[in-house]
Amino acid sequence: MTKYLVFGHKNPDTDAVSAAIAMAYYLEKLGHEAESVALGEISDETQFALDSFSVEAPRIISAIDGQVERVALVDHNEPQQSVDDLASVEVDYVVDHHRISGFETAQPLYYRAEPIGCTSTVLYKMFQEKEIDIPQAIAGLMLSAIISDTLLFKSPTSTQEDQDAAIELAKIADVDYQQYGLDLLKSGTNLSDKSDLDLLNGDAKSFDMNGKNVRIGQVNVVDFDQILGRKEDLLAEMKKEIDAHGYDLFLLVTTDILNSTSIAFVAGDASQNVEKAFNSKLTDQEIELTGVVSRKKQVVPALTQSFEA
Amino acid sequence: MTKYLVFGHKNPDTDAVSAAIAMAYYLEKLGHEAESVALGEISDETQFALDSFSVEAPRIISAIDGQVERVALVDHNEPQQSVDDLASVEVDYVVDHHRISGFETAQPLYYRAEPIGCTSTVLYKMFQEKEIDIPQAIAGLMLSAIISDTLLFKSPTSTQEDQDAAIELAKIADVDYQQYGLDLLKSGTNLSDKSDLDLLNGDAKSFDMNGKNVRIGQVNVVDFDQILGRKEDLLAEMKKEIDAHGYDLFLLVTTDILNSTSIAFVAGDASQNVEKAFNSKLTDQEIELTGVVSRKKQVVPALTQSFEA
Repeated sequence: MTKYLVFGHKNPDTDAVSAAIAMAYYLEKLGHEAESVALGEISDETQFALDSFSVEAPRIISAIDGQVERVALVDHNEPQQSVDDLASVEVDYVVDHHRISGFETAQPLYYRAEPIGCTSTVLYKMFQEKEIDIPQAIAGLMLSAIISDTLLFKSPTSTQEDQDAAIELAKIADVDYQQYGLDLLKSGTNLSDKSDLDLLNGDAKSFDMNGKNVRIGQVNVVDFDQILGRKEDLLAEMKKEIDAHGYDLFLLVTTDILNSTSIAFVAGDASQNVEKAFNSKLTDQEIELTGVVSRKKQVVPALTQSFEA
Repeated sequence: MTKYLVFGHKNPDTDAVSAAIAMAYYLEKLGHEAESVALGEISDETQFALDSFSVEAPRIISAIDGQVERVALVDHNEPQQSVDDLASVEVDYVVDHHRISGFETAQPLYYRAEPIGCTSTVLYKMFQEKEIDIPQAIAGLMLSAIISDTLLFKSPTSTQEDQDAAIELAKIADVDYQQYGLDLLKSGTNLSDKSDLDLLNGDAKSFDMNGKNVRIGQVNVVDFDQILGRKEDLLAEMKKEIDAHGYDLFLLVTTDILNSTSIAFVAGDASQNVEKAFNSKLTDQEIELTGVVSRKKQVVPALTQSFEA
């Protein structure tokens, strides 16, 4: 029997881990052998979800190293976000909710992507279609992924389908999704034991914007005071990162998950682009991003445009 | 309201046309405006299917030319098989059953591919999932596509899902799928009004095999005599094509759809690779390919290997 390894992207978030566990279960129900693994450390938020439903964290791998010949990807498809030796295996399944870029196969495959808030919502539909019952613990993890990706349905990436799936999954998981959701989101906001560099890079992604190298990190808090007290140190660390990696702009977006709004610290030669992008002024390298919660939908497009104009 | 153009690949076959018509209907049922179009002439077989179910042929386009901003692709994803100005529009939907290659988007999209015999089988499942009734005429076209792609379930690309879908679609279309299927396949086998060059290139695809340029055409017949009488002329035309385009190998596969077997005419410097690939001898530039019906599954892999060994 073919064994599949199933994994989400590097720097795994709650959806990357939960969707891998759910997809491995789905493949087993289709008669395959499958193991979920993670391409990096489990975050505090994800660990909270695993603990809440008594699920062991998947083992962490950095390469396939000949363990299997076939894999299933969840929550990503771009090779640079995947395992380094992806080219050594066949990708037979992809379940995702991102753009498609740089992804190539030699053979036909099962590929299921939808432009919605969370991979676990796509998986929920796949379970429904095959009439496969979702065990309580896996439902709890899938619910956690949807809450995490949509910030409890407040992100502009959230759709009615995400909310409908979450409500059904909460019934199976037997939790109050509002209360559990807040607890889950708060569990990812403990910044006190993280270094400045951890905060900057934990969730950061790099973007090419009209030839400029733009770095955008994001952290979640329940109170901006959690981050404001560390502003000078963080800006100094951002300056070091800019010097080391040649970034033209470094943006650290801090999102208040209770009030669904953000502030950003800004450093780099292209700082004025941030004023242009959000039509607002920088004060001491800081800017208010009122109502902004999604890097993908609200930060990247506005900044990209500011570099093109 | 956004209007979608929906189309299959260039040199459209029955699946490319039928899946486009079915997908346009599906998008309309989801509340979009959608028009199916074709990227080339309608084949005899496809015209037979359209006539059988009283459906007008979609209009033929060669470029989007600003007609719409958003499109849905069926039965293909590789840009060189698509409309030339594909980069000028957003691809919001893909429904397919091929490998993924060279396909890129800037935004998340709906992408649905499965490794099965026919795009129309994937579409059948999508209609089922959304509980959308399939009108009789569209069911007839989808059935035709499955019969065409799987050679009435005899191709090694055919799966149980294709056969199950075809049986259900035949009920809606109110036809005997065995009888209709034979009539449909035969409708594509009238070679008498086609020039030698039409026969060579009508369905031909080019492949890079370890740096060699390999051209493979395929025609369907009900009797090899239909092609054997034209062998000398076809080989002469193949020689001309080789000289004009620098092919290292030209293979014209003729498939007897009633007996599910093929013969091939072979020309070019790399002709010996065909003997190696199929472990059989060429006689007067002709080779028997016993039991071979699928270029994708039975011809291309064997030939590719012969160039690598």
